[in-house]
Amino acid sequence: MRTTVGIIGAGPAGLLLARLLHNAGIDSVVLESRDRAYVEQRQRAGILEQGTVDVLRAAGAGARMDREGLPHDGIELRFDRRRHRVDFPALTGGRAVMVYAQTEVCKDLIALQLKEGGPLLFEAEALAVEDAGTDSPRVRYRHEGRESVLECDYVVGCDGFWGVARKAVPEHLSRVFERTYPFGWLGVLADVPPSHDELVYARHDRGFALLSMRSPSVSRLYLQVPEGTDAADWGDEEIWDELERRFETGDDWRLERGPITQKSVTPMRSYVHEPMRHGRLFLAGDAAHIVPPTGAKGLNLAVGDVVTFARALVHLGETGSAERLDAYSETCLRRVWQAERFSYDMTTMLHRAPGATPFDDRIQLARLDRIATSRAAGTDLAEGYTGFPLD
Amino acid sequence: MRTTVGIIGAGPAGLLLARLLHNAGIDSVVLESRDRAYVEQRQRAGILEQGTVDVLRAAGAGARMDREGLPHDGIELRFDRRRHRVDFPALTGGRAVMVYAQTEVCKDLIALQLKEGGPLLFEAEALAVEDAGTDSPRVRYRHEGRESVLECDYVVGCDGFWGVARKAVPEHLSRVFERTYPFGWLGVLADVPPSHDELVYARHDRGFALLSMRSPSVSRLYLQVPEGTDAADWGDEEIWDELERRFETGDDWRLERGPITQKSVTPMRSYVHEPMRHGRLFLAGDAAHIVPPTGAKGLNLAVGDVVTFARALVHLGETGSAERLDAYSETCLRRVWQAERFSYDMTTMLHRAPGATPFDDRIQLARLDRIATSRAAGTDLAEGYTGFPLD
Repeated sequence: MRTTVGIIGAGPAGLLLARLLHNAGIDSVVLESRDRAYVEQRQRAGILEQGTVDVLRAAGAGARMDREGLPHDGIELRFDRRRHRVDFPALTGGRAVMVYAQTEVCKDLIALQLKEGGPLLFEAEALAVEDAGTDSPRVRYRHEGRESVLECDYVVGCDGFWGVARKAVPEHLSRVFERTYPFGWLGVLADVPPSHDELVYARHDRGFALLSMRSPSVSRLYLQVPEGTDAADWGDEEIWDELERRFETGDDWRLERGPITQKSVTPMRSYVHEPMRHGRLFLAGDAAHIVPPTGAKGLNLAVGDVVTFARALVHLGETGSAERLDAYSETCLRRVWQAERFSYDMTTMLHRAPGATPFDDRIQLARLDRIATSRAAGTDLAEGYTGFPLD
Repeated sequence: MRTTVGIIGAGPAGLLLARLLHNAGIDSVVLESRDRAYVEQRQRAGILEQGTVDVLRAAGAGARMDREGLPHDGIELRFDRRRHRVDFPALTGGRAVMVYAQTEVCKDLIALQLKEGGPLLFEAEALAVEDAGTDSPRVRYRHEGRESVLECDYVVGCDGFWGVARKAVPEHLSRVFERTYPFGWLGVLADVPPSHDELVYARHDRGFALLSMRSPSVSRLYLQVPEGTDAADWGDEEIWDELERRFETGDDWRLERGPITQKSVTPMRSYVHEPMRHGRLFLAGDAAHIVPPTGAKGLNLAVGDVVTFARALVHLGETGSAERLDAYSETCLRRVWQAERFSYDMTTMLHRAPGATPFDDRIQLARLDRIATSRAAGTDLAEGYTGFPLD
C-alpha cells in the first residue's frame, strides 16, 4: 500500500491529522493497533482548549461537541479555606475551554473518517518505521495475520508514549528530558451530576483533589495518592469521604455522591523527546511528550502538533517551500515547553510532595494567594489554561 | 531610661522607624551594638523599591537619594544567548526602582537622627528583651561598660537574624520556616563604571551572574558559587573571566574591568519566623525573615515592616484602636510571604542547582521565554520587583 502520509495511531492526534489532510486534499492511511471499540472507550482527557475547539470546528468535526460539550469560562481554586474563581474570558479577552471527553472526540473523528476519509485500519499493528532518513519512509505493520508495508512520503507517529515511531529516531540524535513525581492520581467516574458547574482544583495538606465532569450526569473526580497505589485499596465511601475533606465542603457547598463506575490510578510524568522530527518521520502528541494531567494539556498539545504538521505540508504544496516542515520540531517544541512548564507549575503548586517542608507549604499558599489577588498572575494562569497560541 | 518605643538595631529598619516615629511626635530610643563607622560602612543591599523611595521621601530622608541615586526603569535578563528587558513603568503603570546603597540610606538617617531625633546609642549591646508579654516590656543592654535597662511601652526588634529580640518569643509559640540553597554569591565591588546602565541578570549553564552598581563609578558584581566557597580562592582576573562567560558578552556588549576593592561570599537562605509579634515585642526586617538576595527584597521588606508598625501606632494614638497593632503580624506576613515567594522564584529560575537535570534546565529557559513573550508574566515579575503594596 502507498500513501502520501502514513499515520500511526488512531488517537485524537492521528484521527484529527487524517481529517485535516483529507480536507486539504492530501491522502493518508491510519494504522491503529487496537480495535474500534477499545479506541472509542478508553478514558483520557476531557478539557479542550479554545484553540482545539476552533480547530475541530474548522475541520468540520465540531457539531456534536457544540451540542453536547460543556463550555467552561473558568475554574475554581480552593486552598486554606478560601476559594477563588479564575475567570478565563475576563482575563484573556474572551478565551475559554470546552469539557468534552477525548473518547467523544475520537468517536466523532472515526465516524467522519470512515464515511469520507481515507483508509483507517483497526487492529493494524505498526512494527517499525524504516528508512525515515530517506525520501521514501515505510511503515512495516501486521494486519489480519500478515505483515505488510505502507510506503509513504511522510510518516507521522501519533502512537503514544509506548509506540514504535519514536524508536526510529537514532539514539545518538535523541535527547530525552524527564521528570517523575512521587504521587499519582486515583481517578473515578461516578454516575452523579457534578456538584459544581466548573472544575474545582483543591490544594490541601492531605493532598490534591480535583472535581471534573464528563457530562451533565457523569462526574470525574481525582485524588492525589502515593506513587504505586492500587486503586482496589480504596473503597468507594472512603474515596467520597476523602474528597469531602480535601474540598473542605461545608454548608455552602456539598459533594453529591453516586455509584462509582470506574476507578484507576494514573502515574504522573513529564517527558520530552527532542527532536520531534527525524528526516521524514514526525512525532506528534504522546509519542514525543508527556505532561502530568494537572494542566489538562496532553490532548491539546497533540492537536497543536498535528495542526502544525498539516499546515506545513499544505504550505509546501502551495509554495514549494519546505521551510515550515523543516521547522516542525522547533515550532512545536516552543509550545510544548510552555505546556510542560505550565503543567509542572500547576502540579507542584497543588500537590503535596512527600517530604514537603512547612516552607514549601507556605510557598504554595503564597502562590495561590498571588493568583487570587494579582490580575497579572491570574492572567498568566488563564492564558496557560486556555492554551498557548498555535504558530 | 524610659521611652515609648525601644528600638533594637540601627540598620535601615531601626533608623527609619525612629525617623517615622519622630515625625509623628512619638519618642523612641535606638540601641545599636556596633559603632557608627561600622554601621555606615557595611555593604548590603542597593535596590530601593518604589514604595521604599516614596517612604524615604515622605519621611524627609530622600534629599541625597534623589540627588545621587540612580533611578532604574527596568532590568535585563540574559539567557540562552538571548536578552530581554523588563520595562517596569510600562508594565506596572509607572512604578520603578532606585539604586542607592543601604549604607547611604543609613548614613542619611543617622545624620537626621543625631540632628533632630531621639537618643541613638552606638556600642549599646542589647542583651535581652524582658516582660514582652506585659504592658511594660524592657530591654536590658550594656553601654559604656555597664548594664542598664530601657523601659518601654513597645519594643521593636530590628536587630537582624542573629539578634536577641526574636529569642524573647517563647519557643512553643514560634514557628520557623526555612530553606537553604546549595550555593552562594561571590560578590565584588570594583572601581569601574558599570558596563550596563541597568541591572543584568544572567542565567547560564555555568551558574548565575549579576551585574549591579553602587554609583556611576562603582560596579557591584556577583557570581553564583558552590556553598562554602572561600572568596580568597578566586583571583581577580578569574572573576572577570567567569563574569564574561556567564554574561555571554560579545561584540555588542563588553564588560569593563577595574580594580576589585572588596570580595566576599554570601550564603543564600529563606527564613520566616511566625508570628512577628509577641505581646508588646514586634519583630521587623531580618530579625523575622531572610530572603535570598536575588529579588533585592531584604531591605524593602524591613521598610515595609516598620512602616506598618509606625502607622499602626499612630492609628492607636489617633483613634484609641489597637486593631492595626494587633494585626501587625498578619499584615506583615502576607507581604513577607509574597516577597519570599518572589525571591524563591527569582533564585530558582536563575541559579543552576547542583544535580539539576536537563529537564530542570529546560523549565528554567521556558520560564524566561514566557516572561519575554507574555505581557502577563512580565507584569507579574515587574510588580514583584518594584514591590508589593503596603497595606
